[in-house]
Amino acid sequence: MRSILSVLVENRAGVLARTAGLFARRGYNIESLAVGETEDATVSRMTIVAQGDERIMEQVEKQLNKQIDVIKVRQLNAENSTRRELALIKVNANTKTRGQITDICAIMKAEVVDLSPTTLTIEIADRPERVKQLLNMVEPYGIVEIVRTGMIAMEKGSAAISLPE
Amino acid sequence: MRSILSVLVENRAGVLARTAGLFARRGYNIESLAVGETEDATVSRMTIVAQGDERIMEQVEKQLNKQIDVIKVRQLNAENSTRRELALIKVNANTKTRGQITDICAIMKAEVVDLSPTTLTIEIADRPERVKQLLNMVEPYGIVEIVRTGMIAMEKGSAAISLPE
Repeated sequence: MRSILSVLVENRAGVLARTAGLFARRGYNIESLAVGETEDATVSRMTIVAQGDERIMEQVEKQLNKQIDVIKVRQLNAENSTRRELALIKVNANTKTRGQITDICAIMKAEVVDLSPTTLTIEIADRPERVKQLLNMVEPYGIVEIVRTGMIAMEKGSAAISLPE
Repeated sequence: MRSILSVLVENRAGVLARTAGLFARRGYNIESLAVGETEDATVSRMTIVAQGDERIMEQVEKQLNKQIDVIKVRQLNAENSTRRELALIKVNANTKTRGQITDICAIMKAEVVDLSPTTLTIEIADRPERVKQLLNMVEPYGIVEIVRTGMIAMEKGSAAISLPE
């Protein structure tokens, strides 16, 4: 099972290493991790996607909560969340194939953000399954480079995983 | 000085902890980190943004290169790269302010992806400084929650930081 954890942590050197270490010591591979600033500069938010059944993820959640740098941990339900991923994809493109690739981008609502005589660079921000679909569509042209952020997620509606008052 | 490192690593449990640990032991705070899959399922790519002068970042680069899980490390030049960040932003919105916020989104090319009677959720994928600009514009309405990916970057033109053949 794929689990999504949203973790608020103190923005301090070593927090990321300690958090990632907690997963590593239990042999759980983190599929993706994205960490960025929040509305409070002293606090960062990590979105961690990892494989593990519910019982295992509950243990991880408990262990995370025990860490001094961790402010809050929540598991997010995929169906009840807005899930997004960002990717930059550089593909081979020549005068013959350029139009075909921009057609795919238009249909997928992806954007061409750079070009060279031999390549196009595509930006897509969408649900992870849509990013995968675009990758499958452009793969035949030859992918030169991919950079992905990993998934971020936010609960639908007005609820929030926010800082304690 | 802000440095951008693009690091190709083996997709194994513990890699993230070891890499983050290398920064932590030297007291360098990682500003943002995004790790996702590449075209090869056994390989992940990390984009790390950290503060440190050129000499310090060269040392970090050398140390990373020594790690067994690290396949390739490159520093990216901000001017010569396409830099993007993804953010989901939940803001307070009522019948009076909803239209004002969607106006801001239209101008900033951000998208409203969810709503409730009291909130709007906005998605933006853009340059980090544009994400910051949008945050400043919606802050007066009251930010309920922010989830960000951290920056990813890709060299402009046809060059690539790709897997060795």
